[in-house]
Amino acid sequence: MPVNLTSPVASELLPVEGVLLGIAEAGIKRPNRKDLLVMQLCDGARVAGVFTTNRFCAAPVIVAREHLAHADGVKALLINTGNANAGTGEQGMQDARTTCAALGGLLNCKPTQILPYSTGVIMESLPVAKIVAGLPGAVANMRADNWYDAAQAIMTTDIVAKAISKQVMVDGVTVTITGIAKGSGMIHPNMATMLGYIATDAAISQQLLQEMVREAANRSFNCITVDGDTSTNDALMLIATGQSKLKEVSAFGSTAYCTLVEAISEVAIYLAQAIVRDGEGATKFITVKVEGGKDAEECKKIGYAIARSPLVKTAFFASDPNLGRILAAIGYAGVADLEVTALKLYLDEVLVAENGGRATSYREEDGQRIMQQSDITIRVVLNRAVANATLWTCDFSYDYVKINASYRS
Amino acid sequence: MPVNLTSPVASELLPVEGVLLGIAEAGIKRPNRKDLLVMQLCDGARVAGVFTTNRFCAAPVIVAREHLAHADGVKALLINTGNANAGTGEQGMQDARTTCAALGGLLNCKPTQILPYSTGVIMESLPVAKIVAGLPGAVANMRADNWYDAAQAIMTTDIVAKAISKQVMVDGVTVTITGIAKGSGMIHPNMATMLGYIATDAAISQQLLQEMVREAANRSFNCITVDGDTSTNDALMLIATGQSKLKEVSAFGSTAYCTLVEAISEVAIYLAQAIVRDGEGATKFITVKVEGGKDAEECKKIGYAIARSPLVKTAFFASDPNLGRILAAIGYAGVADLEVTALKLYLDEVLVAENGGRATSYREEDGQRIMQQSDITIRVVLNRAVANATLWTCDFSYDYVKINASYRS
Repeated sequence: MPVNLTSPVASELLPVEGVLLGIAEAGIKRPNRKDLLVMQLCDGARVAGVFTTNRFCAAPVIVAREHLAHADGVKALLINTGNANAGTGEQGMQDARTTCAALGGLLNCKPTQILPYSTGVIMESLPVAKIVAGLPGAVANMRADNWYDAAQAIMTTDIVAKAISKQVMVDGVTVTITGIAKGSGMIHPNMATMLGYIATDAAISQQLLQEMVREAANRSFNCITVDGDTSTNDALMLIATGQSKLKEVSAFGSTAYCTLVEAISEVAIYLAQAIVRDGEGATKFITVKVEGGKDAEECKKIGYAIARSPLVKTAFFASDPNLGRILAAIGYAGVADLEVTALKLYLDEVLVAENGGRATSYREEDGQRIMQQSDITIRVVLNRAVANATLWTCDFSYDYVKINASYRS
Repeated sequence: MPVNLTSPVASELLPVEGVLLGIAEAGIKRPNRKDLLVMQLCDGARVAGVFTTNRFCAAPVIVAREHLAHADGVKALLINTGNANAGTGEQGMQDARTTCAALGGLLNCKPTQILPYSTGVIMESLPVAKIVAGLPGAVANMRADNWYDAAQAIMTTDIVAKAISKQVMVDGVTVTITGIAKGSGMIHPNMATMLGYIATDAAISQQLLQEMVREAANRSFNCITVDGDTSTNDALMLIATGQSKLKEVSAFGSTAYCTLVEAISEVAIYLAQAIVRDGEGATKFITVKVEGGKDAEECKKIGYAIARSPLVKTAFFASDPNLGRILAAIGYAGVADLEVTALKLYLDEVLVAENGGRATSYREEDGQRIMQQSDITIRVVLNRAVANATLWTCDFSYDYVKINASYRS
């Protein structure tokens, strides 16, 4: 079950003026399940995004990038679950374009004004006919207030829907931000979404929008790992409809920019953490803080060595303070000149190791007590310099194996 | 249970003249278990080794390196299981030296002529008193023909002992090579042993011996992964006693050198593969071949991305040909200019993917048939150039989680 994560309350998810959401049950993988989402945008809305770095990126990722580069403006996003349309070669590209053309026909716009996204099983053909047949139903039911259903429609192995809204005052105007995301396995930067959509009614210049989505991703989805596998389909999209009364934000570093990027990042961090809390088989949410490094890169290296280690993750699953495994992971992280005698390891506030070994003050029962918690912070203080990094991960349980040994069946 | 790996037959393990083995039950972690091994070497024997690259390397690794660098010559190797003496700080160094001094006293040699090795739980103090108390028993029972017991004495979570002998003719002289190894979790290069000891009665110059152990390690223990965790204690040691009638091998590239390094590598490869076959919870042995790369490094990158992926490994555990997960792993391996449309993916002889997607000739039942086997080869043909790499790994099962969630208790 998800770790300290409850389903969002539908009434707390705020519409974003300029975004309409249509959902359908297209029977892509199985019947009677919401598996198709259309996000229709008002004229003048701007979209920016960051995508998976996987070389085997899926056809919809390639097509979405292409269409985003067109100057036509984006009219809608089309998201299906149940099939990733990845590892599908030239046919996959055609299939993605066919679905864009079908939705373009329904919305009276060019196919290039549609951005496609897919998630689900890899290396199986996209069931284009089912998606095309499902689109009219989605378009016929466009509403501004069904973000909750939208969050549900993009789920695959997720147990709970992931969505949040936030309002901030910018230059005296209330700005609304609502975001949804899905993902619980094959989670590792960069990117780790697998899919995230954040919309705001602020008006933001295209350049700043791209900057904001990059920063939000770096502070959120690029700081989580469930199993170390980087998906073929990851995407985080940021939509600015410009329907609030706020003047267009176009100056980097302005108060409006800073307030917005902070609020958008908070939404992204909530969604990214929700993905980890709902990590496949997760029973514990683990924050890994690495402090006092020479640069953020080495802090991240050490953090990911800990966060990815199956030995560390199974020890947390067992609530077993077998904390030497963390030291071993720090040691093989690849920081060549690391002085292990200089670092300190904490579990929450408990000092576990220093001077290259167990701290003299450490008592097994203190470690045991922290290991029983469902939210735990591993803190490594390197004492080299002042850089730091924070990552989020979960433990590794029987259920991870079970879910991933049976995902297709 | 180990995958196509049976216990060695004691009578097939050949003594190596110049090596005596003494075993004891020292009760280090639990009673009535062989947990201490002394390998006594004849005068003039030479020893070379490669050790873990983990920055948190264990105290015995540091001490063994120091003692190896002394010009005194090695008289004995001292190996204990049940405790790794890693993450034990300055006390751990003293403890390792104390055990060397104790054995040196019994064998009438300097402490620096003893090389110490430990394996087992991390960050707990070495029970020095138990080891010292166990040594006289081990020394009193030195024999040349108990390699099988020696292999058993170094086991931790291993299910079967790992040992092999081989004889080759070099310049008309029969040379004997016998090796033992232990390890089944925390297995990832470099090194991945965790512990391996190979002895030959050939005479080999110190320089060539070091060269040989490096090459043997690169072709064997540095090509395996179970869980991606690099141990704090890994060591592969190569011993040349010089007791055969073969003239000292001292010319790099000579026929004698090539014959010996080939035979020693074969022993090392058998032992390394045995570790994977006995990998914690393993039900399948997987060979990953990456061919046609620009250099061996990129082939290894791709091979390890596949071999480490929990998603790939759980699919193999389930015998589910969810082979898109392999494509995803290839894609995120970090080869920036990889053209995914140019590569081919095979499962044994079955062509699975080409042109960026599923091969038109591929049928699910063919993939299913191969996935049922206990020995499977994943072959990736990159079609970039001529370099290649071969790695060995195992699947990821419930039992891996079970073993590692309960290892200490």
